[in-house]
Amino acid sequence: MGRKHITISRQFGSGGHTIGVELSKRLNIPYYDQNLIEKVARDMGYEEEFVSNIEELESSSKYNFFYKLLVGRDEFGKSITDYIWETEQKVIRQLAEAGPCIFIGRCADYVLEGKEDFLSLYIYSNMEARKKRIVERFGEREDSPRKRLIDKDRKRGNHYHYCTGRDWGVPENYDLCINSGKLGIEESVEAIAHIWNR
Amino acid sequence: MGRKHITISRQFGSGGHTIGVELSKRLNIPYYDQNLIEKVARDMGYEEEFVSNIEELESSSKYNFFYKLLVGRDEFGKSITDYIWETEQKVIRQLAEAGPCIFIGRCADYVLEGKEDFLSLYIYSNMEARKKRIVERFGEREDSPRKRLIDKDRKRGNHYHYCTGRDWGVPENYDLCINSGKLGIEESVEAIAHIWNR
Repeated sequence: MGRKHITISRQFGSGGHTIGVELSKRLNIPYYDQNLIEKVARDMGYEEEFVSNIEELESSSKYNFFYKLLVGRDEFGKSITDYIWETEQKVIRQLAEAGPCIFIGRCADYVLEGKEDFLSLYIYSNMEARKKRIVERFGEREDSPRKRLIDKDRKRGNHYHYCTGRDWGVPENYDLCINSGKLGIEESVEAIAHIWNR
Repeated sequence: MGRKHITISRQFGSGGHTIGVELSKRLNIPYYDQNLIEKVARDMGYEEEFVSNIEELESSSKYNFFYKLLVGRDEFGKSITDYIWETEQKVIRQLAEAGPCIFIGRCADYVLEGKEDFLSLYIYSNMEARKKRIVERFGEREDSPRKRLIDKDRKRGNHYHYCTGRDWGVPENYDLCINSGKLGIEESVEAIAHIWNR
């Protein structure tokens, strides 16, 4: 179908990141997650622009210390999150221009909207499977696995809504939503690769 | 994977019914939608039981005419919808026992819950594609295509919630959610058949 990109939104503990990495090997195209997008942003020289914006925000004399701490916005109404998001969008667009690839997280489905040549995925799973997975992968913490999942989902949902104005995890925002707990990680990779290769 | 059944929940105008019928041909297993489940209920002799329950509800002297009209419940608190739903559940379970098949609608994903051997799907699409589809298939009506879609979705959502206590169209209730407007009907059938046959 001539698709060039895959975007993956995922619940914490659903294995969505692993699915992205496995797909990257399987389809022989690179993947970019938060760490890699940050690295690319640095390589592309965005770090300097970003740091100078943030310094400007911090040195702005228009608002007092507490206001800035609480609201965290400069005189253009931009927060640190806004600056990060602007940079991420530029990087994602440049990477997408450069060739086929997979984006894990970073609201890439929203950044690429309007393009016809990408497959946007939402990976989710049931609470029990996710609890098991995060304990296996990241160990126990002071907070219960359930609380860790709810906290992280809330943060991802809030971030997605902040950046895109859309609701996270609502099917209408994606092409395909996969319950990785039911299908399994391997089967999910297999099914997505099959669709991609058609 | 040894799966025996497929259940399809779908938005009006998403082509979910067509996907079910095409899958039935492709996988060579029967499908059951509302009409066929009604027919089977009749063949299984449930009609008599159902009609007698309804007659009892209608002749009940415990409540007055308006109360029954408004609330539509008998002395056990059961409405006509409850009686239909009970019969549907019995029929769906019996059909599932009889062999592999596809259920279109009728909250079959909920009826089969707990079984490991079925694939539950939610088929949805974007508003524009759905508007186009219902006008092509069912013609123009006095109400706008948008209003017809919203009304029907609302009814399906309410019915699903009434029968299952769960929210309709929420990914967590399904194994796979497919945007048929993005993937296309044929590709959706192809992808589901691929997963089924693994």
